[in-house]
Amino acid sequence: MINYLVDAIQKKEAPIVVGLDPMLKYVPKALQQKAFETFGQTPEGAAEAIWQFNKAIVDAVYDLVPAVKPQIAMYEQFGVPGVAAFQKTVDYCRSKGLVIIGDVKRGDIGSTSEAYAVGHLGQVQVGENSFYGFHEDFATVNPYLGSDGIKPFLKVCAQEKKGIFVLVKTSNPSSGEFQDQMIGDKTLYTLVAEKVAAWGEEVMGDTYSYVGAVVGATYPEMGAALRKVMPKTYILVPGYGAQGGKGSDLKAFFNEDGLGAIVNSSRGIIAAYQQEAYSKFGEAHFAEASREAVLAMKEDLRQAWER
Amino acid sequence: MINYLVDAIQKKEAPIVVGLDPMLKYVPKALQQKAFETFGQTPEGAAEAIWQFNKAIVDAVYDLVPAVKPQIAMYEQFGVPGVAAFQKTVDYCRSKGLVIIGDVKRGDIGSTSEAYAVGHLGQVQVGENSFYGFHEDFATVNPYLGSDGIKPFLKVCAQEKKGIFVLVKTSNPSSGEFQDQMIGDKTLYTLVAEKVAAWGEEVMGDTYSYVGAVVGATYPEMGAALRKVMPKTYILVPGYGAQGGKGSDLKAFFNEDGLGAIVNSSRGIIAAYQQEAYSKFGEAHFAEASREAVLAMKEDLRQAWER
Repeated sequence: MINYLVDAIQKKEAPIVVGLDPMLKYVPKALQQKAFETFGQTPEGAAEAIWQFNKAIVDAVYDLVPAVKPQIAMYEQFGVPGVAAFQKTVDYCRSKGLVIIGDVKRGDIGSTSEAYAVGHLGQVQVGENSFYGFHEDFATVNPYLGSDGIKPFLKVCAQEKKGIFVLVKTSNPSSGEFQDQMIGDKTLYTLVAEKVAAWGEEVMGDTYSYVGAVVGATYPEMGAALRKVMPKTYILVPGYGAQGGKGSDLKAFFNEDGLGAIVNSSRGIIAAYQQEAYSKFGEAHFAEASREAVLAMKEDLRQAWER
Repeated sequence: MINYLVDAIQKKEAPIVVGLDPMLKYVPKALQQKAFETFGQTPEGAAEAIWQFNKAIVDAVYDLVPAVKPQIAMYEQFGVPGVAAFQKTVDYCRSKGLVIIGDVKRGDIGSTSEAYAVGHLGQVQVGENSFYGFHEDFATVNPYLGSDGIKPFLKVCAQEKKGIFVLVKTSNPSSGEFQDQMIGDKTLYTLVAEKVAAWGEEVMGDTYSYVGAVVGATYPEMGAALRKVMPKTYILVPGYGAQGGKGSDLKAFFNEDGLGAIVNSSRGIIAAYQQEAYSKFGEAHFAEASREAVLAMKEDLRQAWER
């Protein structure tokens, strides 16, 4: 799947992943109303609204980008119907040829991590049959529990030719509270990055590993340093746009081959119509606004590359 | 809820939480068959089997213990039907007056952590209505992202009078890989524990805080040290039994008032019938074996207390 992702990034000339993090407040009123007419103002209604919202955006951008990253928290907040909308979204994105990065940030002790790995990337055995669970292509994983929280994911990744992105340095303001602490002469996030590189050696694709890393766009100097610590690791870069990361900051996350990183934008794309710059589209044409926002992001990244 | 939990622990004289982590291999064949007859050897069939398994165990032990801890990974592995079985389990345990600790180990950046907090502990707004999501009483939370991953949980906890248990020192063999690293003169887990104590000050119950901590039974010396770092923090102690933690190790996790910790056992209770010691019950009486295992655990803890 990492080979497929690299391929798709090159073909579409877009190291971009669209974050499908549908807060209800991003969903145009008319779309909400339509869902509520059928399901009421209920979790089922909300789940229908975010699913229809996602579908329209995916239809508008799937030819431009290689991947999507649904953030499962935004679905879990609506309980079981929300999780069903997550599943629908994953399935639909697959049908459009998109790589699906499940932003699930799971991680636990051995046997439990195995259940997460099976549920999100692998196949579960039921009697004589086996079934995919949520069937994402990649999952984000939290490293706090150490290697035996990660290894079960590697096993499933090897079986399924799928991948993970391990949290190394997250994009949020307080990420440094623990991640930046010095352990001897290096930071905790550097120590995690070294582990990511080592885990990655166990499951290599053609050029890059099945094991990627998450490093926030909001910390470009750290991105540059981490790029060197993990040369064969694909870096998933959140925090571009709404969180403050700029195109000019991003070059640091890439290798000289122009590969090695994929930049996420969520709100900046899916709620583009709510921004001044795209207000001409109006609520009715929210998906077209998202398409314009993807094109603008592509151009921003291209220009950053030329500087 | 922390007050209610402390109360229930005292009334039932059992600082014990039963981990509802139903691997399919723990579910007696007859129960599996019955579920498969209705739903086939499918995720729906598996979900039905683990739900019926949980229900029987809860019926057999709810009068003995104050709390249960369903591990959501074991449900997520079966996809949406599995998550629905998690919800059913939570609802059923509530109807039995049990405190529900959702072992979900979530944690993300601000707005996303808020969605998790809302989904697992709080109420989501849909139009003019609000709804509980999974409606656990406590959730376990991963601290790797720092304060702004935790604060949204505190907000929801204050509103709902619910709580969280933050991972401090986990029970697994490789937990030390990052958690034990020295930062200046203290370990990372100590630094996290200090933060837990500080976060806890913001949302205090009568004697203990809404913010608890997870510290593995497999590391009793660390438990003793952490007990002092976080005097008002309830400690959720996994790793007893199957993972190797012994009753005699547990005293370190408690305060002198005999409170301050609650010990989890999962496999040791729910799959008791598969152990030599309880084999006389057989598959047909698996729930009675679980009851016996709870009574034995209670006695083991009581004896440890007397030593």
